[in-house]
Amino acid sequence: MDWFIREENFNKDNIELNGSRYLIGNGYMGYRGTLEEFGAQQLVALNLAGLFDQNGQLWRESVNAPNPFYTVTYIDNKELNPLISDVVAHEQTLYIDKGIHTRRTQFKVDNTVITVEAERFVSMKRENLAVLKYSVSADKNTEIKVKTLVDSNVWNINGDHFAVEESKSENGINIMSLRTLEKGIPMRVYEYIQSGENDNTVTLKPDETFTIIKVCGIYWGEEIESSYESFKNVCSKEYEELKAEHIGVWQGIWENSDVVIEGDKEAQKAMRYSIYHLSSIVPRNTDKSGIPARGLSGQVYKGASFWDTEMFMLPFFSFTDPSLAKNLVNYRLNTIDGAKRKAKEFGHKGAFYAWESQETGDDVCTLFNITDVFTNRPMRTHFKDKQIHVTADVVYGLWEYCTVSGDYSVLACGGLDMIYQCLLFFYSYSCYKPMENRYEINDVVGPDEYHERVNNNPYTNKMAAYTAEVFAKALEYVKENNKDIYEKFIDKNDISWVQDFLEKIYIPEPDERGIIEQFDGYFRLEDVSLEELKERIIIPNEYLGGTNGLATTTRILKQADVVMLLNVFRAHYDSEIKRINWEYYEPYTEHGSSLSACAYAIVAAEIGKLEWAYEYFMKTATVDLTGKTKQYLGSLYIGGTHPAANGGSWNTAVFGFGGVSYTEDTIDISPRIPKHWKSLEFKLLWKGVRISVRATQNNVEVSCDGNSDNINITVNKEKFTA
Amino acid sequence: MDWFIREENFNKDNIELNGSRYLIGNGYMGYRGTLEEFGAQQLVALNLAGLFDQNGQLWRESVNAPNPFYTVTYIDNKELNPLISDVVAHEQTLYIDKGIHTRRTQFKVDNTVITVEAERFVSMKRENLAVLKYSVSADKNTEIKVKTLVDSNVWNINGDHFAVEESKSENGINIMSLRTLEKGIPMRVYEYIQSGENDNTVTLKPDETFTIIKVCGIYWGEEIESSYESFKNVCSKEYEELKAEHIGVWQGIWENSDVVIEGDKEAQKAMRYSIYHLSSIVPRNTDKSGIPARGLSGQVYKGASFWDTEMFMLPFFSFTDPSLAKNLVNYRLNTIDGAKRKAKEFGHKGAFYAWESQETGDDVCTLFNITDVFTNRPMRTHFKDKQIHVTADVVYGLWEYCTVSGDYSVLACGGLDMIYQCLLFFYSYSCYKPMENRYEINDVVGPDEYHERVNNNPYTNKMAAYTAEVFAKALEYVKENNKDIYEKFIDKNDISWVQDFLEKIYIPEPDERGIIEQFDGYFRLEDVSLEELKERIIIPNEYLGGTNGLATTTRILKQADVVMLLNVFRAHYDSEIKRINWEYYEPYTEHGSSLSACAYAIVAAEIGKLEWAYEYFMKTATVDLTGKTKQYLGSLYIGGTHPAANGGSWNTAVFGFGGVSYTEDTIDISPRIPKHWKSLEFKLLWKGVRISVRATQNNVEVSCDGNSDNINITVNKEKFTA
Repeated sequence: MDWFIREENFNKDNIELNGSRYLIGNGYMGYRGTLEEFGAQQLVALNLAGLFDQNGQLWRESVNAPNPFYTVTYIDNKELNPLISDVVAHEQTLYIDKGIHTRRTQFKVDNTVITVEAERFVSMKRENLAVLKYSVSADKNTEIKVKTLVDSNVWNINGDHFAVEESKSENGINIMSLRTLEKGIPMRVYEYIQSGENDNTVTLKPDETFTIIKVCGIYWGEEIESSYESFKNVCSKEYEELKAEHIGVWQGIWENSDVVIEGDKEAQKAMRYSIYHLSSIVPRNTDKSGIPARGLSGQVYKGASFWDTEMFMLPFFSFTDPSLAKNLVNYRLNTIDGAKRKAKEFGHKGAFYAWESQETGDDVCTLFNITDVFTNRPMRTHFKDKQIHVTADVVYGLWEYCTVSGDYSVLACGGLDMIYQCLLFFYSYSCYKPMENRYEINDVVGPDEYHERVNNNPYTNKMAAYTAEVFAKALEYVKENNKDIYEKFIDKNDISWVQDFLEKIYIPEPDERGIIEQFDGYFRLEDVSLEELKERIIIPNEYLGGTNGLATTTRILKQADVVMLLNVFRAHYDSEIKRINWEYYEPYTEHGSSLSACAYAIVAAEIGKLEWAYEYFMKTATVDLTGKTKQYLGSLYIGGTHPAANGGSWNTAVFGFGGVSYTEDTIDISPRIPKHWKSLEFKLLWKGVRISVRATQNNVEVSCDGNSDNINITVNKEKFTA
Repeated sequence: MDWFIREENFNKDNIELNGSRYLIGNGYMGYRGTLEEFGAQQLVALNLAGLFDQNGQLWRESVNAPNPFYTVTYIDNKELNPLISDVVAHEQTLYIDKGIHTRRTQFKVDNTVITVEAERFVSMKRENLAVLKYSVSADKNTEIKVKTLVDSNVWNINGDHFAVEESKSENGINIMSLRTLEKGIPMRVYEYIQSGENDNTVTLKPDETFTIIKVCGIYWGEEIESSYESFKNVCSKEYEELKAEHIGVWQGIWENSDVVIEGDKEAQKAMRYSIYHLSSIVPRNTDKSGIPARGLSGQVYKGASFWDTEMFMLPFFSFTDPSLAKNLVNYRLNTIDGAKRKAKEFGHKGAFYAWESQETGDDVCTLFNITDVFTNRPMRTHFKDKQIHVTADVVYGLWEYCTVSGDYSVLACGGLDMIYQCLLFFYSYSCYKPMENRYEINDVVGPDEYHERVNNNPYTNKMAAYTAEVFAKALEYVKENNKDIYEKFIDKNDISWVQDFLEKIYIPEPDERGIIEQFDGYFRLEDVSLEELKERIIIPNEYLGGTNGLATTTRILKQADVVMLLNVFRAHYDSEIKRINWEYYEPYTEHGSSLSACAYAIVAAEIGKLEWAYEYFMKTATVDLTGKTKQYLGSLYIGGTHPAANGGSWNTAVFGFGGVSYTEDTIDISPRIPKHWKSLEFKLLWKGVRISVRATQNNVEVSCDGNSDNINITVNKEKFTA
């Protein structure tokens, strides 16, 4: 397979889309796949992870740093830019094995062909570094001017986010000092040009190439202090050395996380492309930031983290690089105060995690998240105040990390308290119905956002029950392993109610047909087909949810809800229940969210619907390759990458086709791969032991790297011994 | 004061409005104030109480019978009809003391002036009878044709409701036999013309008058069987005899129910006009039908009964003619099975009374009660499934009847069981919050329908608590007076939970400012003035409520809610709390319902704001006189009379200005009449004793008709002895 994606010929309609498709990132920053001569209008962005700013009353969002790669060539003072120049040839390439972006464009000015080539990366080895090599050649003697600088005129969705305080040079290093507007957080951008100047005038001969190599450093917050020294020490390293060490890190990533599909080049490419994105955007050296819902591709969704992280992306990290998973888990532990504030704000106890979480954990989701297309008025939605399952999802992520990695140390470091606070939240949110002798959870929004304020959503209720179960296990663990902490905890917290809640929380069961009702009264809603519903649409982008939406009074779902439940609790529900519910809900599901398809794919694989599973897998895995998602909603840019779908691809490959499932102490591998695949290979780190799996149509090979004596593996439900 | 209302000159724009203003009725039927020559297009209707029919999938509504009064005069085969003829003079009069409608119209044809006079009534003495006297005279020799018939082409809002099965004559009686469409209920209309024929050709001399007198009988259901004999026995009675006995009944009504206001003719007229309507529409001889929300003025609101009956109209009947109040109370007892079916339908226990109740008690309110003006789509509203206070309102009505009349016999005849079923409903609807150790009632719509699905609405919660209190008292009463029934009841029903519910039901208290929050989170809604809100309206009749309405996210209320609470529980809340809340909520209240003003009026009187009280009183009392309410919503007729406002006028006069309040065993009379009134007089029947009150600015005279030894009366809180 080719480890790259490439676009030949220049098409201006693809600029925004390619910005996301050709993204490079290292977890600290993402740099959009735009050309060096582009600016804010073309949505160039160096998007920073974990740094947020609010401009006035506009939405608070992640900060785009000044663009260190801005470089333009001029002939006769005319800019070479495919938007305005004659382009003879053009290609843009992203090497996903190495995290390197290149472009090569041949411009024609009069009778001269000028070739611009550039190669860039944001270093996986040194997260502050952004490195560019930019070359120009011509087929005739030509005087060119090449200008490079750090462009502080950046793209923002909700207003500017920094002010430039000072620009100076020191020892050949250009230093731009900035400060964010809201909190005055310092930022600094260093630029060191190893070859060339900021402004170059060169007369090229036909066999000559003029090259600029520049190394830039981006720092913010406390890093600023030591940043000059730090940058100075590396900025003069050879380009090839910086590149090699960067590639070296990527090699290590692939070594442990690659999924190999033989017999299906398209699937292989989409699979690896998904892994590339996940690996590019995960915070590697900090537990202060999560993964934004659009990765590091910009400010869409405010740079905030959603339940996407725990339920869709985290499994990949827990199973391939637990240190990264731990960063993500700790991010939630670090932001629990925000969750406590939110619980209090809405009159509940405990911790109510943000629907949209930034660095403090306070919820940046607004109560009016959508604009009514009929009235142009803000529409009250209940994502923030009612979509409570996010709190259990966070617990799910933590516990999955513990289970998969075997590292339960987070429990003593705030984990137990966090689980308790989440459980307390559910307890205070729920209501006890004495006549039914059960706790119900009413007035919520489940994963399917088209039906707001519903009662007893099985996904939500089951996740709340799961939270109680996890709490009981975590408490037991801490009791056995951290006596002091256990005693302090017990002194401080009332747990007398936990057992009662756990026993009496109501989980809707399958009815006589085997169908689990998505919420109380769902079956009484209008039974309409998706096609018919869509015929009722008056304005193309009208919102189908809310209280007044077209889907609201019907059975049409935005996304997997009961099927998500069956996916998450795959060990709990039997295959027949899965089949019945999958078949019941599938026709009603619009898949209006990129989180939907993978849940359908995984469950389809489990119930032997391999063709459906493959179709939904490809839908998930190619979402960022094809970019077949909305880029604009009205005038609002909503494009970007879809890391939840990227994670969902891995989940489908491993849990769906790889047939991996696990309990606290046993992992089972029962593959069922699509008919046209020759093989599927992947590696899993299970409680510290690296397991390699190779599944073919008729066989499965499993091997362990390390001591597997203390772990339980079954293959096709039978005990496996290395 | 003139005991009549009169319109001089003919104005076709007033036809629909006058149909309601000039309504005559006797509880069995209402006949709209249209002219004899009018037809379905002018919304002529003989609206029947308690007979309902559904045409296909259209809204089920009350039945309009064939029009027995249809009579037209022709000159040269040209109809005399003010819509097409020259009118020289016209007057239409309703005598509210006698329940008699007259009209006199002078038409000019060429040079001849023809005078048409008509007088009609629906007999208070014999509820099936409708009687018409119709006369024509001319100022020159003229040949006229007069045609009279029973017009079966009737006005319907939601399709036809009967088929004519047979028309025949027997012994000079024309008999039209019909059947309703849905249930095939038989109807019969008899027509007996005492003077004249159906078709008359007469040559009038200037000093002659041609007169038709016809007596008609309307019967339906089981009455049909004996109807011919019954009608035959009365149809030939003299017109004046029938009229005199009819007037005699009205005299008796006024004797016990008149409210006399000296010093304010407008208020006096509006007051009496309100009493006239209440007395015209209450079922007198049956407990099978309630009072429709638009009285007997047509099919608007489907002819269904709402909480309007118990909370606004019933006090008038309980205090002036308890036998009528008992009919209304028994109507609810008779329809409890519908309420039980509704509770079951929505997953609750006990009895959940209909928001819109017809003859079976099943709820005819739809889940989509409003059309969205922006999309023309039906809008989901929650009047039916969440406006649960209606169930407690029904209990309130029953208990008020018992308390006021002193007749507790209904408790043993289904009353106790009904109260229990209502309480059981609230218990099953409520949820226990263990952390607060209280029962909450969440996800409801309070009286203010602009805020749907709210939590802990004080009116609703307090009414639920009241239901529990009433149950305890009712149980105690039956235990002492009907031992057998008590024991059967106790055997059959679990009451172990009642005490716990009563003790722990959460009633929101006034905050530190003294304000009772209308529901959880109300204070966090946008604080906008009514004027500013109205400026945001895009389409004039857009609905302000629902989830997406302009008022929904603000503090603007449709109608009294907390103030309604203070009105209903006037003995429970002190004057200062009333003042603070009245002043807080008044500016936010749109009074989008005719139920709102009287609650504001009564509380205003209690807190000494007599000018405000008077303003709101007049608003309430004149609503049907001025007809300043919407007659059409789009193409939908929504006009009609407003019996809740009529009842609200009486409540304001007696409870507000009359200062009447009562507990189980004591009635207090502490009047405070508007500054410009000379006196206010009214009579109350309290536990079988007729109390007459005459209040002036400085004095109050109270007298009792009957033995008052066993009742407690206080005047200005001091013991009164007759």
